Amino acid sequence: MTPSATGTGVSGEGFQPPARVVMIGAGQLARMTYQAAVDYGVALHVLATSADDPAVTAGAALSLGAYDRVGDLVAAAGHGDVLTFDHELVPPAHLRTLEDMGHVLQPNASALAFAQDKLHARRLLGGVGRLPVPMPAFAPAGTADDIAAFAVTHGWPVVAKARGGGYDGRGVHVLAGPDDARRLLPGSPGTAEPEWVVEEHLDISAELAILVARRPSGQFVSYPPVGTRQEDGMCRELVMPADVPAEVAGEATRLAESIVAGIDATGICAIELFWVADGRLLLNELALRPHNSGHATIEACVTSQFHQHLRAVLDWPLGPTTLVRPAAATVNLVGGAQGVDYAVRLPGALGVPGAHVHLYAKASRPGRKVGHVTALGASTEEALDTARTAAAILTEP
Amino acid sequence: MTPSATGTGVSGEGFQPPARVVMIGAGQLARMTYQAAVDYGVALHVLATSADDPAVTAGAALSLGAYDRVGDLVAAAGHGDVLTFDHELVPPAHLRTLEDMGHVLQPNASALAFAQDKLHARRLLGGVGRLPVPMPAFAPAGTADDIAAFAVTHGWPVVAKARGGGYDGRGVHVLAGPDDARRLLPGSPGTAEPEWVVEEHLDISAELAILVARRPSGQFVSYPPVGTRQEDGMCRELVMPADVPAEVAGEATRLAESIVAGIDATGICAIELFWVADGRLLLNELALRPHNSGHATIEACVTSQFHQHLRAVLDWPLGPTTLVRPAAATVNLVGGAQGVDYAVRLPGALGVPGAHVHLYAKASRPGRKVGHVTALGASTEEALDTARTAAAILTEP
Repeated sequence: MTPSATGTGVSGEGFQPPARVVMIGAGQLARMTYQAAVDYGVALHVLATSADDPAVTAGAALSLGAYDRVGDLVAAAGHGDVLTFDHELVPPAHLRTLEDMGHVLQPNASALAFAQDKLHARRLLGGVGRLPVPMPAFAPAGTADDIAAFAVTHGWPVVAKARGGGYDGRGVHVLAGPDDARRLLPGSPGTAEPEWVVEEHLDISAELAILVARRPSGQFVSYPPVGTRQEDGMCRELVMPADVPAEVAGEATRLAESIVAGIDATGICAIELFWVADGRLLLNELALRPHNSGHATIEACVTSQFHQHLRAVLDWPLGPTTLVRPAAATVNLVGGAQGVDYAVRLPGALGVPGAHVHLYAKASRPGRKVGHVTALGASTEEALDTARTAAAILTEP
Repeated sequence: MTPSATGTGVSGEGFQPPARVVMIGAGQLARMTYQAAVDYGVALHVLATSADDPAVTAGAALSLGAYDRVGDLVAAAGHGDVLTFDHELVPPAHLRTLEDMGHVLQPNASALAFAQDKLHARRLLGGVGRLPVPMPAFAPAGTADDIAAFAVTHGWPVVAKARGGGYDGRGVHVLAGPDDARRLLPGSPGTAEPEWVVEEHLDISAELAILVARRPSGQFVSYPPVGTRQEDGMCRELVMPADVPAEVAGEATRLAESIVAGIDATGICAIELFWVADGRLLLNELALRPHNSGHATIEACVTSQFHQHLRAVLDWPLGPTTLVRPAAATVNLVGGAQGVDYAVRLPGALGVPGAHVHLYAKASRPGRKVGHVTALGASTEEALDTARTAAAILTEP
């Protein structure tokens, strides 16, 4: 219970915070969660790898340490009553250790495993588990031969995904044939645990993300489906609501809710789905934390995903998820050019009426998400047009 | 340019903030301005009297010091390119000193004088100045005899207001007759500068606040008029838009805009007006800073008053002020009971669908504003009902 040396964690003199939450990780998701915590007077303490991390520069109290060192996790956990996460990289054994010590993890270690290990998620959700969740055909892959064997049944190309640790397109490869497979996995056959999942290549009509918030006591709410557009495997643009027929939106929401309840997840959960040309809705992957696909909720919904995450992990009543305007869009700012001068770019972008700019206080680097722009509108086209215009001013070379 | 020892002011490794702003004062207005600064990656440095001040516990970098010590002001001013304020208590001579040293004050010292000194504002705006602003009959008052002389013309009761320093009803007295006047000003007649303004007592139909944001380069925007309801001189409830005829709203807005431009104010300005039973619109007082009457803009308008204040003082493009829903209401949380347990009260209040709760991390004390609740709705009645219900849960004994 030692107070942080570098921040009081929104606890003023004589003020008792309504709750004390610890978040492992201090990136932009923790930054925006912290902004919501300030509204509620909730003390949010983060485990950060650097005092320059986005949540720390926003003001969160911190422990400095590594998410893969159990001692650092335990030290951070002592600063709150509930432990939650801005990424899924904490080793499962450490999560179990924290639970064995009596710390309250939201979501719990068993649920987090579904976000940490794609093979685990595919195996347990794909029919052998409690829920018959529709998903792409898949197989574990330790060698190029495993991939080739899968392709005999499902044809080339195939998609190879690292079981864990991948994000923003890292760890995902489309393989056109056996040569690609050998380049990815040049090693000879062994008996080691397969580190990859190979999946059928799909003809995708749309990618959807369903945000569901769920409390430990079981209450849950869902947001309007989000349509996502990827580029180089990284999410670039999002619209809310997604441009899909109402029955697809409804089925996607029911599927997402059944997954979240089925794995006993808590907090905000992002269930990413493929809507395939043949009409099927298939599970892509899931994240059990505030998610890029929900950034528009800050301005567009009665309750932002960040406020909702705090409410959910604290088992507090959840808030309405309804849109305040008919549509919203978010465009991610992916840092290309070095040395972008925000003193010029930001006023330029704010000259676009209705553009809500969020900068994460991260230096620009190629391929790095450094912020986002959200806009609301009478239609997703209108909102997207506004957000794109402002985002272009902030990122163009 | 010494970096603060206790915060990096939203500037991460390798990230150059778009601007550096200093705010004098670190109360809830600075706290919410800081939350907006985090969105923009703007470094906000505050001059705080305590590390427990609301803006500091939210994460703002700080200088510790007093707003009435010129050395402390100068030290804080070095942390930014623009200096602004969360109150009007800085001595005018110190403001002039800062300007003489080359610091950029937004608003400037001449404009601030209109918010600092009610007699100055009445005299300069009431016909002898540039603008013929309608206002209550008034006179300077140094003694009880001055007040009695005013009452000969205007009748009892009268209203006595301290020239400066008053807020939340402090420094405002309704005087029923000569005995009240003598109790307020028991001293004998002297030649000292009068410290009070005496005004006619009005039959008020409604109190309005018009928020106007103005840039140094002249661009300005106004928000929909706010209706305010006072209790013991402290603002308790606000609705947006105010429940007045369209022609009254229009006249109030034109009047507010002409005052703001006339005194060359910059940043967010709150012009408080009386709508009197005989139909006149009269200037009450003005504040040149983010203002309690604008808190609903956080959720209700495309651009919050706090984002807008930063944009305005930085001479950046101003944002749209339109409502995203037809109506909004804010209820202030005035701390009555000691030891309110927010761990119970806050979840209770969040169980009211659509209640947006903001706690300032201040200990509860009788008569102290410790937070506010905003709600949106199809009508101000609907919004007010939601906000009142949640506020009651947070404050009732």
